[in-house]
Amino acid sequence: MSYYLESTPRTDGYRMPGEFETHAGCWVLFPERPDTWRDGAIPAQRVFVDVAKAIAQFEPVTVCANTSVYEIARAMLPRHIRVIELSYNDSWMRDNGPSFVVNSENQVRGVDWNFNAWGGLDGGLYFPWDKDNLVASKVLGIVGAGAYKSPLTNEGGAIHVDGDGTLITTKSVLTNPNRNPDLSIGKIEQILSDYLAVDKVIWLELEGDDETDGHIDGVCCFVRPSVVLLSWTDNQDSNIYEECHEAYDQLMLQKDAKGRSFEIIKLPYADLQPMTKAESDGVHQVDMTLPRLEGMPVFGGYINFYIANGGIVVPNFGVETDNEAMQVLQEAFPNRKIVGVSGGREISLGGGNIHCITQQQPVGIPML
Amino acid sequence: MSYYLESTPRTDGYRMPGEFETHAGCWVLFPERPDTWRDGAIPAQRVFVDVAKAIAQFEPVTVCANTSVYEIARAMLPRHIRVIELSYNDSWMRDNGPSFVVNSENQVRGVDWNFNAWGGLDGGLYFPWDKDNLVASKVLGIVGAGAYKSPLTNEGGAIHVDGDGTLITTKSVLTNPNRNPDLSIGKIEQILSDYLAVDKVIWLELEGDDETDGHIDGVCCFVRPSVVLLSWTDNQDSNIYEECHEAYDQLMLQKDAKGRSFEIIKLPYADLQPMTKAESDGVHQVDMTLPRLEGMPVFGGYINFYIANGGIVVPNFGVETDNEAMQVLQEAFPNRKIVGVSGGREISLGGGNIHCITQQQPVGIPML
Repeated sequence: MSYYLESTPRTDGYRMPGEFETHAGCWVLFPERPDTWRDGAIPAQRVFVDVAKAIAQFEPVTVCANTSVYEIARAMLPRHIRVIELSYNDSWMRDNGPSFVVNSENQVRGVDWNFNAWGGLDGGLYFPWDKDNLVASKVLGIVGAGAYKSPLTNEGGAIHVDGDGTLITTKSVLTNPNRNPDLSIGKIEQILSDYLAVDKVIWLELEGDDETDGHIDGVCCFVRPSVVLLSWTDNQDSNIYEECHEAYDQLMLQKDAKGRSFEIIKLPYADLQPMTKAESDGVHQVDMTLPRLEGMPVFGGYINFYIANGGIVVPNFGVETDNEAMQVLQEAFPNRKIVGVSGGREISLGGGNIHCITQQQPVGIPML
Repeated sequence: MSYYLESTPRTDGYRMPGEFETHAGCWVLFPERPDTWRDGAIPAQRVFVDVAKAIAQFEPVTVCANTSVYEIARAMLPRHIRVIELSYNDSWMRDNGPSFVVNSENQVRGVDWNFNAWGGLDGGLYFPWDKDNLVASKVLGIVGAGAYKSPLTNEGGAIHVDGDGTLITTKSVLTNPNRNPDLSIGKIEQILSDYLAVDKVIWLELEGDDETDGHIDGVCCFVRPSVVLLSWTDNQDSNIYEECHEAYDQLMLQKDAKGRSFEIIKLPYADLQPMTKAESDGVHQVDMTLPRLEGMPVFGGYINFYIANGGIVVPNFGVETDNEAMQVLQEAFPNRKIVGVSGGREISLGGGNIHCITQQQPVGIPML
């Protein structure tokens, strides 16, 4: 499509800023599909509304809604939250939305990754994903920001950048044959460099056995350049015990693009009860969608929080670790207000959490 | 819906500006339905694209497209024209879009009329019109401007304002039992006063025998306060002969809200060949949609032009009167560039023209 820019962000002087840099606002999709979200998505819709309200304390929020749920979303959300009709297959704006980039003149464009629902027909979560794959360009169209179409199959949740030349990701996603079977690691690094203006890609080698194949935004994130929060547990029976220890060891051996070692802050993980029969029974199990069955692990990562302007919006799970995690976050972000949203389990039942359902738009003037 | 503002524009200090006042941009819907637009709407899409390009010379243009035609619209339109997914039943942004209002602090909101497809089940043009009726609030949502829900069933093409207290409309639309059966003329005037901050409503009493029941934007419009362009013919065989002479006589007897008489400029009308068999055959004739049959009159009104910032975008019909009309417009608007768009017949075949498919957004800061 001639709609896309023909150059790359790096060539044009754009870089992807860190999430901790100033935002123009936040984008969210409204949950709907009953084969992801139990009980007709009504409980999830309520939690998404709470997340949107929490973020809207700090920055403007736009919730996009399929035609079928537009009026529901509009009625459930307060007037100061913008609701825009837009079609999608499922509601993970982090993954199907654009990765915004900025330049030194405070101008904003965005990268549109190829999206295949976390693995396409080889381990992807549902079919089809045609509407999801248009979400990024549609959002950029609304913003009035130029779009770069990347040759990489990627999701926003598979990458974290420090805005200062460093990107952290996992081999289990980007080098997975279900994402980029024909691209070498070197070629992937080149694309990330071209499209996000990063100079160093840090590859974590983890099991990647969750439904995203191991998104980095379920593992760690940047507080600021060279400072990383890492989801952590000392409980050897925890699902993430091995993963977090491996990630720690690997990160400690790394240096960032500027040659700095990482300071690692351990953020507690909540070991949650696996999916109950009642929870599973509320989800339509349909062909071509990953089933959600009793006994499946439920993600308890506070690490999947959202950094807003002056705030941190973090899932709470109604367990003891909630307070402990909020305290660690307050120490890591002393100048931001930490806001917990209860109902975090509800989003986890769908397969992610607050970071997965949000996408920041950095402050700046949209440029076509 | 709590989404709507609870007051009225007048109470809050807003008024509807004249179309000739400065715009932030223009909104258009992309044509699609094959029971309005012949040959699968492809010829109409091409003309709409030409209209959008012509207007985009002067001000930003946003074209909204149903999901089904979003990618077609995006591919057909140049990158500097914004395309946004939005659902609608047919593509008449003048009539189902918002009427924007401004205040003295340069802030912008909008009025959302009740829309019933030009008469509902009693002479309306198609069923259903549910998506059309949400277009105005969706556009205001995208803009981030507060919406006032008016109790009036109305279409933007049924009213023209001078921005200085005067509104011109036709009795055949607003007092039609198929629009507002329970509202007296006095009550309608009160609503127009409350929602557009007009002090005088001028009612033309015309036949109103077209499919809109006689929209004012097929008859006359304001050049500026107290100066009116009137669609005109001296040809006694013309469809509009009686109407334009009646309108002239009635307008000459009127004074505007400020007590001024009207200067009337006569704008030629093109007497076009009625709908041909080939044209009619290209339209799907379906139940619950007004049929478009061979021999039906085809609207040839240059009066249905769009006033852009520094420009006038006017239909051309490929007939002699094109140049004459463009000259009259150039004299009426000496400081604007007159741009004719050929293919005006194609839009007329669908039931309107350039004014009917556009909606100006006045310049100003959107206020929730």
